[in-house]
Amino acid sequence: MAVTPPKSLTRSLDVPAKLLMGPGPVNAPPRVLQAMTNPVLGHLHPEFCMVMDEVKDGLRYLFQTQAEVVCCISGTGHAGMEATMANLLERGDVILIADNGIWGERAAEMARRHEADVRVTKKPPGENFSLMELDLALAEHKPLVLFVVQGESSTGVLQPLEGIGSLCQKHGALLAVDCVASLGGVPMYMDKWGIDVLYSGSQKVISAPPAVAPIAFSDRAIKRVKGRKTPVRSFYTDILWLANYWGCDEGPRKYHHTGPVSSIYALREALAIACDEGLESLWNRHRLCSKKLSDGLANLGLEMFVSDPAKRVPTVNTIKVPEGVDFMKVIKHFMSKYRVEISGGLGPSAGKVWRVGLMGHNCTEDNVDLVLKIFKEALAEAGVTMSKL
Amino acid sequence: MAVTPPKSLTRSLDVPAKLLMGPGPVNAPPRVLQAMTNPVLGHLHPEFCMVMDEVKDGLRYLFQTQAEVVCCISGTGHAGMEATMANLLERGDVILIADNGIWGERAAEMARRHEADVRVTKKPPGENFSLMELDLALAEHKPLVLFVVQGESSTGVLQPLEGIGSLCQKHGALLAVDCVASLGGVPMYMDKWGIDVLYSGSQKVISAPPAVAPIAFSDRAIKRVKGRKTPVRSFYTDILWLANYWGCDEGPRKYHHTGPVSSIYALREALAIACDEGLESLWNRHRLCSKKLSDGLANLGLEMFVSDPAKRVPTVNTIKVPEGVDFMKVIKHFMSKYRVEISGGLGPSAGKVWRVGLMGHNCTEDNVDLVLKIFKEALAEAGVTMSKL
Repeated sequence: MAVTPPKSLTRSLDVPAKLLMGPGPVNAPPRVLQAMTNPVLGHLHPEFCMVMDEVKDGLRYLFQTQAEVVCCISGTGHAGMEATMANLLERGDVILIADNGIWGERAAEMARRHEADVRVTKKPPGENFSLMELDLALAEHKPLVLFVVQGESSTGVLQPLEGIGSLCQKHGALLAVDCVASLGGVPMYMDKWGIDVLYSGSQKVISAPPAVAPIAFSDRAIKRVKGRKTPVRSFYTDILWLANYWGCDEGPRKYHHTGPVSSIYALREALAIACDEGLESLWNRHRLCSKKLSDGLANLGLEMFVSDPAKRVPTVNTIKVPEGVDFMKVIKHFMSKYRVEISGGLGPSAGKVWRVGLMGHNCTEDNVDLVLKIFKEALAEAGVTMSKL
Repeated sequence: MAVTPPKSLTRSLDVPAKLLMGPGPVNAPPRVLQAMTNPVLGHLHPEFCMVMDEVKDGLRYLFQTQAEVVCCISGTGHAGMEATMANLLERGDVILIADNGIWGERAAEMARRHEADVRVTKKPPGENFSLMELDLALAEHKPLVLFVVQGESSTGVLQPLEGIGSLCQKHGALLAVDCVASLGGVPMYMDKWGIDVLYSGSQKVISAPPAVAPIAFSDRAIKRVKGRKTPVRSFYTDILWLANYWGCDEGPRKYHHTGPVSSIYALREALAIACDEGLESLWNRHRLCSKKLSDGLANLGLEMFVSDPAKRVPTVNTIKVPEGVDFMKVIKHFMSKYRVEISGGLGPSAGKVWRVGLMGHNCTEDNVDLVLKIFKEALAEAGVTMSKL
């Protein structure tokens, strides 16, 4: 053998426990992790199809939708974004991206790779879009698709969605929404708000390990896919094949690809926990914990990056790094002393903010208290006195 | 709420234990399943990067390669096939598909969706390609890429690979090989055989749950990707981004997407088990068990679908359904009486064969004995007497 067995794999796997208070993934509760120790089943065994059906039930509740096509892309959140672009767009199709952070940029890049005619309407990081702004942009660009991010996790901004669906219908556009960082943490009404494609990730508020991207297509969106002139470029994320595999159409389920069986068990359990708590409680918990965090930070003299509290997404809290403070030193203090992860900015917020995630399993008052305590300590350590802030 | 919490999720998750002796997924050993109960880590935490590095070490051993770019697509085996097409092909590029079963067909479909100029050289199900046949086809089509399947799991055929790499180099083509169903069960020498893109799946011989597609790109293949005129259509599977995330280039690892952390733990443990056993032992075990199975089946009067034993892939054993026998009845007997999965044909072999997988954790003499015992019983039950066969 030219290549010999690696020594590195003779060691035992040793994974430290950390508290993940960044923008995700978050810690999965024991019941969710334990679910993955269940025996692997075939990807079309009736017992596994039942688990898939239960996942669909849970997602319909979280999405608040009665759409027929609700399933998962067998890839992490990004695969959900890519599936959205791959299914909706053909060469030259106009897509309008509401870009106020990294996810708008990423969506634009993906759409360009699909040779769409990408139009971008921009707001500065920390801002969101008004209905009037979107109305004007839709009128100007007449897109086939409007893409909006509900929770812009790079900046901590919440995009209100009510009313955008009607605007899209008025202008003949489909509405695609990224709720990776927000689903379960803030209200979501896919049907009532007229959303056509909605996707999320398993590893945020849902608190399952990163593995799959829940996704739903409205009837209008499915009609669009069926009306394409060219096939969806990606067979793997072709929503019509996936819908069949997930039992969302009339046909018998056909083999499309091998689903990530164990990850779906975990998602099933995470959804069961979320459904048991209920959406109102989930939304409340996230609102209250986020409020407690920002109040506590204000007491420490820290300022939120998003000045208007109504524009903040409670799941990803962005905090301005005060002038003269080394943001990495603070992040390292969290990790080295407490094994707690908080993170820096991303894209337009890189270097400017800390990001504290409050998501699902990790969104508790105790965790908020811990984060506040460490912030206080880390700032003192960094030589920042209260008065200086 | 228009949609209320589903009753289905108030039940406990109840997954039956089955012995998966079909063409995959297969049962994962306890150590592998248990690995997923480790705490979730951030997708760029140093401890997780170390796990990724160890996975690369293990894959380099299984692939027998010293290629720099060895990583995983965050999707199941099919995503590996799609990543291969997405990265290598641009509109109008000629790809030659050696098609002797479902995977050739599937690869052709994916390549067509990428607007490649797809040429197909075909052999009947149950056959493989000779070097001379491939040489002629390469000379005729002058493709950019030749695509070959090492273990055609729909028919149980092994494609010998030695010599194909030199042919490809002579004709200026890149060689892409699917070893989803074969890796670990038969010899594989990526570098020695001149393979440019090689991908597999986690849920076959490796015996981890279905989740990721290990993949490697030779320097030539990477050069080709870097020389593209148009961007890789799929951002999610863009190998240059992935190579960076997996630490295969000089740059610091950048955020690309959130890797399936827990699934990578499982893969790491499965690879550790395989490396501990060693390739020669693995290959031997698969050869011996497959021989024992076909001998036993012959004793029962059953015939293998692939007549020449040298053309059989030991990981997926295809058995002719004797005339007058209801193949589904036999499959149901396996499952209902013993909770053992064997499967029917797929694509060109549908209805004509049974497929018995002997892969990794499940490839044991005891399991072969069990399968033979059940076959004997099921055939008797189906009213097939030995003399009739």
